[in-house]
Amino acid sequence: MFSYLRSIKERDPAARHYLQIILFYPGVKAVFWYRVANFLYTKLKLKLLGEFIMFMVRTIHGIEIHPAARIGKRLFIDHGSGVVIGETTVIGDDCTIYQGATLGGTGKERCKRHPTLGNNVMVGAGARILGNITIGDNVKIGANAVVLDDVEEGKTVVGIKGRTL
Amino acid sequence: MFSYLRSIKERDPAARHYLQIILFYPGVKAVFWYRVANFLYTKLKLKLLGEFIMFMVRTIHGIEIHPAARIGKRLFIDHGSGVVIGETTVIGDDCTIYQGATLGGTGKERCKRHPTLGNNVMVGAGARILGNITIGDNVKIGANAVVLDDVEEGKTVVGIKGRTL
Amino acid sequence: MFSYLRSIKERDPAARHYLQIILFYPGVKAVFWYRVANFLYTKLKLKLLGEFIMFMVRTIHGIEIHPAARIGKRLFIDHGSGVVIGETTVIGDDCTIYQGATLGGTGKERCKRHPTLGNNVMVGAGARILGNITIGDNVKIGANAVVLDDVEEGKTVVGIKGRTL
Repeated sequence: MFSYLRSIKERDPAARHYLQIILFYPGVKAVFWYRVANFLYTKLKLKLLGEFIMFMVRTIHGIEIHPAARIGKRLFIDHGSGVVIGETTVIGDDCTIYQGATLGGTGKERCKRHPTLGNNVMVGAGARILGNITIGDNVKIGANAVVLDDVEEGKTVVGIKGRTL
Repeated sequence: MFSYLRSIKERDPAARHYLQIILFYPGVKAVFWYRVANFLYTKLKLKLLGEFIMFMVRTIHGIEIHPAARIGKRLFIDHGSGVVIGETTVIGDDCTIYQGATLGGTGKERCKRHPTLGNNVMVGAGARILGNITIGDNVKIGANAVVLDDVEEGKTVVGIKGRTL
Repeated sequence: MFSYLRSIKERDPAARHYLQIILFYPGVKAVFWYRVANFLYTKLKLKLLGEFIMFMVRTIHGIEIHPAARIGKRLFIDHGSGVVIGETTVIGDDCTIYQGATLGGTGKERCKRHPTLGNNVMVGAGARILGNITIGDNVKIGANAVVLDDVEEGKTVVGIKGRTL
């Protein structure tokens, strides 16, 4: 738990101290409740209860994580408003996800239909990673990038910059 | 009503049963309250009351629909956080809209200044459809796509994919 | 205060009268509470209290403004869901920001790491303006545009339009 807070303080220059992170970081609350809901949903098969918890998290904090998603250690969702993480998503350790990002489906697949992220992946604001694709370790996805294919480890994918008229 | 729930179950692989859809789908709640607010606003001319209802829906569920928008049958707003549907928008039957999408204006038009969507249109996450344009039946708009011109029926518009460095 | 409401009525064709703007415009409430929180945070050094106020604004209205950001007169945040304005952002007078826009950092800078906007800048829905860059007076940033470099005054930056298949 402490290593989690310390890792956030390292990743966010606006973080002043641990109390502030615990009190005011919606992404920290969302991931905490996801851990509870995931346990209820997958281990105790209390699916409706797990869904209820994540519905409340989405209502209060604007962050939507399906209770059946599989998420590694120290996920940091920064700001987080509008984030959607789908049912069959797999996320490795030490990933960072910014506001408005979607780890979702394309509507063409069933069963495993959401992305698999390696370790230490960064997903920029508003990025859309869609379908049963694999994003390698240490990949950085830029803001508003649309990603529909596998990305090799260590690569950077950038959204297309606006054009000045 | 039942045909609406069944159509959602067909469109969303994560939907397990009807009770879950009624309890935990913010888009279902938002569209229900829009029907009430639209009746109050347009038929009874209780404009402030209609606006109040949709303000509460936006506060609780993060989905913003102007009570004067005209929306057809079985609209499914999936996830829905950040969706904005403007005052003069017209939406046909059986459309699906994902989180973060905007049906909005460009700021250059008055009166009819928002889009008109045909039937069975799919609007991907974060897509921005702006201005008094017409989107034909069965069109699919991809995630994060910016659409400023009419789209013929049956076409697909894709957002520009991120570039791997 | 009155000139602020009048400027909103001029900028938003959906605004019907001042009462409606005061009651139902989340962006007006967010900017009001930002003024309170900014005073507490920067003048009285009550940082935790300023952060608490903006945390509540984000929870209720879905608009996130760091209490230390410097914001000029008559900022209008329209719709506003998902907006994030970072700690070292500077915004001039008479700017308009739409839903889902981010004035944020790239993660590569410390200290001043967020944008500086001139006067009368328009930031479209879902636009991402990232890093310690300067956006000149009267610039318009289109929907979903990614902006990582300075923009000269009077220019328009457009997001890349979706491609029709």
